[in-house]
Amino acid sequence: MSNINKKPEVIQLSHGGGGQETNTLIKSLFFSAFDNPILNNDEDAARLQLSGDTAFTTDSFTVSPLFFAGGDIGKLAIAGTVNDLAVMGAKPEYLSCSFIIEEGFELGKLKKIVRSMANEMDKSGAKIVCGDTKVVPKGCADGLLINTSGIGHIQVDGVSVNNLKLGDVIIVSRDIGRHGAAILMAREGLTLETTLISDCATLWPAIKCLIEAGLELHAMRDATRGGLSAVLNEWAIASNVGITVEECAIPVCDEVKGLCELYGFEPFDLANEGTFLIAMPEAEAIKALRIMHTFDSEAPAAIIGRVSEERTGKVVLKTPWGSSRYLDLPQGELLPRIC
Amino acid sequence: MSNINKKPEVIQLSHGGGGQETNTLIKSLFFSAFDNPILNNDEDAARLQLSGDTAFTTDSFTVSPLFFAGGDIGKLAIAGTVNDLAVMGAKPEYLSCSFIIEEGFELGKLKKIVRSMANEMDKSGAKIVCGDTKVVPKGCADGLLINTSGIGHIQVDGVSVNNLKLGDVIIVSRDIGRHGAAILMAREGLTLETTLISDCATLWPAIKCLIEAGLELHAMRDATRGGLSAVLNEWAIASNVGITVEECAIPVCDEVKGLCELYGFEPFDLANEGTFLIAMPEAEAIKALRIMHTFDSEAPAAIIGRVSEERTGKVVLKTPWGSSRYLDLPQGELLPRIC
Repeated sequence: MSNINKKPEVIQLSHGGGGQETNTLIKSLFFSAFDNPILNNDEDAARLQLSGDTAFTTDSFTVSPLFFAGGDIGKLAIAGTVNDLAVMGAKPEYLSCSFIIEEGFELGKLKKIVRSMANEMDKSGAKIVCGDTKVVPKGCADGLLINTSGIGHIQVDGVSVNNLKLGDVIIVSRDIGRHGAAILMAREGLTLETTLISDCATLWPAIKCLIEAGLELHAMRDATRGGLSAVLNEWAIASNVGITVEECAIPVCDEVKGLCELYGFEPFDLANEGTFLIAMPEAEAIKALRIMHTFDSEAPAAIIGRVSEERTGKVVLKTPWGSSRYLDLPQGELLPRIC
Repeated sequence: MSNINKKPEVIQLSHGGGGQETNTLIKSLFFSAFDNPILNNDEDAARLQLSGDTAFTTDSFTVSPLFFAGGDIGKLAIAGTVNDLAVMGAKPEYLSCSFIIEEGFELGKLKKIVRSMANEMDKSGAKIVCGDTKVVPKGCADGLLINTSGIGHIQVDGVSVNNLKLGDVIIVSRDIGRHGAAILMAREGLTLETTLISDCATLWPAIKCLIEAGLELHAMRDATRGGLSAVLNEWAIASNVGITVEECAIPVCDEVKGLCELYGFEPFDLANEGTFLIAMPEAEAIKALRIMHTFDSEAPAAIIGRVSEERTGKVVLKTPWGSSRYLDLPQGELLPRIC
């Protein structure tokens, strides 16, 4: 009872001042959650031993709301950057993490997000090795923004947006549109009778198995902002090929279909945060699917299309009714702050 | 005349949607300004060839106002991350760059900032090799936030916060407190009779010369948030030594002195963005100073103190009047959004 009127502890401007309070926050919260020998060195930069072909990527996360069905900004900030490395065929190893926190942000929420980040890093073995914390006055940023950059060693040659070839099939790792739909649901305060959760997840375990199986992977990409449409269009242009996909082969769950009908969206344009596409020779596709099915048995990976020499630079969607149309790069902004 | 009522072009939510408009912004503005073969690869991550001892660092920049005397957020975002690498004895090589832009931000300002980034990278030779662009709705972020992460090869052994030794002197590369004072001036709308500009600058050229001269550098650090006080206190604690500095030896320009008196600040606590400290053996200090004087002739580098075995973990400031006091780690927040 005595706690009812107790105000929650909040982040103050002094937590970002670079002095005593900043040190306390960094050591008691970040260092203890992200603990590893490289991070705990008190230097301005992490010291790494690297050699060979390395991937380097960055992403800022501005998702709203910070907590959504299936994840939170912390899980997303780790999975997002780890996945950008993984789809390059790179083992995610070292991450940087930079927080921009609005003055007055609840410390309890920050702790929850930080734990979620640590938990998600366990999925790939990546480590946060350097960081930065800024606190901005109330109103200068909405709650919390996170940037993660990542470094990883490339384990396989030739995986590239430029490398789609005639005879390749297109595989999607699971049903599409869940992250976009989950964020939309959270924003609109919708409750569905069934549970729709974001696909937000670390893809490295599945991709690692595909690489270790020695499969010939021509291109991989996680279908984030801009969804399936954006990836396929980028591939078609960069590799100068045509891509044809069969609408009825693309897995979309009923909840996502329903929300799309309600709001006039297309599931192909909705963001995903744990769903990836592969282009690879048809001959090896069954082996790849078998591996991928061990990771997502409820919404299994499927062949959705193939590379063709017709209509180069374009993506053609074949509808269940026998007609076909171009699947274009999305225009405008469906859902701001999706990631 | 016909242009008077023309509204300036602004960033729209669709510029961050991951579709057509995002691609156009990235290619026409960022790729053209930051042009290099690694950046222009259309992949989710940059592909680098790395080997050996590597430094990795990250920083988010939230400075307000975005333009100030002596720099802007773009110059700061490059110099800040490059300097974090340089003070580790690492040659700044590869940078990531992530923009969080508020809807409605003037495209003209963004272009100016991007040009300023490109210009600052020329000072060190560092390249932006990967990036990310998010646009958030009006009110969700104040104008523009930039994250840069950086990678560089470490060129010299033993430069570390833990490596201060008895017999070392402390050198400051130029007069202190300028960045903090310049931001304060810009915020308060002050105009001084003389010109006070931020020290914001890339430190790699000077540090490169010190390394190439083969000098024994024990520790280096740029004195950013928390100023000179924060660096010296971190050094004293991490190396378990005492540090004594002579107040009259620390260069502070008259404008900074005046502003400190007016606002009750101490110049030792004010942020710098192009000023660094070195701890090194006294025997080599003259040689180091001679090199540093070729870079900053107006506000020359100076020996300001020495490492002692007394009062380990503490920094002692000797005043011009013969008394002495502890120079503590700053507490609270002097100036939010200083960097």
